[in-house]
Amino acid sequence: MSAGKGLFISFEGIDGSGKSTQARRLAETLRAEGHEVVLTREPGGSPGAEEIRRLVLEGEADRWSAETELLLFTAARRDHLERTIRPALARGALVICDRYVDSTRVYQGVTRGDLRATVDALHELVIGQDPDLTLLIDIDPQEGLSRAVARAGGEQRFEDMGLAMQALMRGAFLDLAATAPQRFRVIDGAGDADTVAGRVRAALG
Amino acid sequence: MSAGKGLFISFEGIDGSGKSTQARRLAETLRAEGHEVVLTREPGGSPGAEEIRRLVLEGEADRWSAETELLLFTAARRDHLERTIRPALARGALVICDRYVDSTRVYQGVTRGDLRATVDALHELVIGQDPDLTLLIDIDPQEGLSRAVARAGGEQRFEDMGLAMQALMRGAFLDLAATAPQRFRVIDGAGDADTVAGRVRAALG
Ligand SMILES: Nc1ncnc2c1ncn2[C@@H]1O[C@H](COP(=O)(O)OP(=O)(O)OP(=O)(O)O)[C@@H](O)[C@H]1O
Ligand SMILES: Nc1ncnc2c1ncn2[C@@H]1O[C@H](COP(=O)(O)OP(=O)(O)OP(=O)(O)O)[C@@H](O)[C@H]1O
Ligand SMILES: [Mg+2]
Ligand SMILES: [Mg+2]
Repeated sequence: MSAGKGLFISFEGIDGSGKSTQARRLAETLRAEGHEVVLTREPGGSPGAEEIRRLVLEGEADRWSAETELLLFTAARRDHLERTIRPALARGALVICDRYVDSTRVYQGVTRGDLRATVDALHELVIGQDPDLTLLIDIDPQEGLSRAVARAGGEQRFEDMGLAMQALMRGAFLDLAATAPQRFRVIDGAGDADTVAGRVRAALG
Repeated sequence: MSAGKGLFISFEGIDGSGKSTQARRLAETLRAEGHEVVLTREPGGSPGAEEIRRLVLEGEADRWSAETELLLFTAARRDHLERTIRPALARGALVICDRYVDSTRVYQGVTRGDLRATVDALHELVIGQDPDLTLLIDIDPQEGLSRAVARAGGEQRFEDMGLAMQALMRGAFLDLAATAPQRFRVIDGAGDADTVAGRVRAALG
């Protein structure tokens, strides 16, 4: 990686796979190497997008249909891209984004398969920009579950259905990676955070 | 118009042309004739859409780009369609909507011509539903201006640029009507509200 050249990196993976941990670690590592790094996340990542995020996530579960929610998240992504990601790339910064369009593809693909084509068409139509590199932290859902349980102080937040869902999403992420091997690097997420961080850094070349 | 058959009617036209006045008048007339009428408006028209409307309209003028604003208004339209328009049509009501997709087409077409194709593509992709009938209240922009000035108690809100813009929009509405003559009825908006209301009622057959 050469200094002064903008690069857009996203982290993807199932719940508890270690995306946020590894995104933060990579940002620290690259800053220590002298790069300007913008660490951001979705949904959100710009003041407007954070407001849209709040609008979507607050209130009743059935407050928005899947279609309306998709449009709101796409509006948030557009704002995030215009106000945070593109300006950073334009000045040569490295952008590290915790979740991006592949999370939308996988969530919609698993929960509402009939919307998957709409997700892709919307992305083409109004977003257009893919990451240069997507780091998929791949982990056994049972492992992600144990971490989530540990994080929640022993509270059992996932049920069996949650686990089956995570397994479906893991498969969907791996399928997506297979269709875009140039853009994706699949990172083994097993082991402690240091071990995984070493794999992530190595994947960047 | 037969009772018990849902019908989706939109009112369109430039600022001050009389859309809200005529939508209200038509709703009263049709209710008096025994129809169930749902009078609604855009942007807004359902609780979620009204919240999106507030998010879009509050704050600085450059708070959202034209693209993000278009996505937010489309999300609001989707919610309005699902929660207000379609349920009303399904139970056989007449829906009268003060502005709908043609306003988006005309505003974007005039202010951001390069987004016009995106408006149409988004509409196809996630909205899909056109009104059965669109009543375009056509008026000389100078007349709309005088009404707006009268309404504002003499305050001069439009400048010459505003008038030129309204003339462009009037042309854009008429062009749109010409491309979909089955759906549009162009109503002469000159004369007092009673006169125009008579023309509107006659146009419905
Ligand atoms: N390699 C690791 N080994 C053990 N625990 C880890 C490891 N990486 C992260 N954790 C812990 O597991 C939990 C989930 O990690 P993290 O929040 O980074 O995952 P995430 O993919 O961002 O999850 P979410 O999808 O919920 O945002 C946290 O409590 C974190 O401290
Ligand atoms: N036929 C008419 N003759 C004179 N004044 C009218 C007529 N119709 C409406 N008005 C008045 O003109 C003003 C604008 O009318 P109205 O609000 O119905 O227009 P509109 O198309 O809904 O405007 P906007 O685009 O600003 O919502 C109001 O003050 C209204 O009372
Ligand atoms: Mg996280
Ligand atoms: Mg009005």
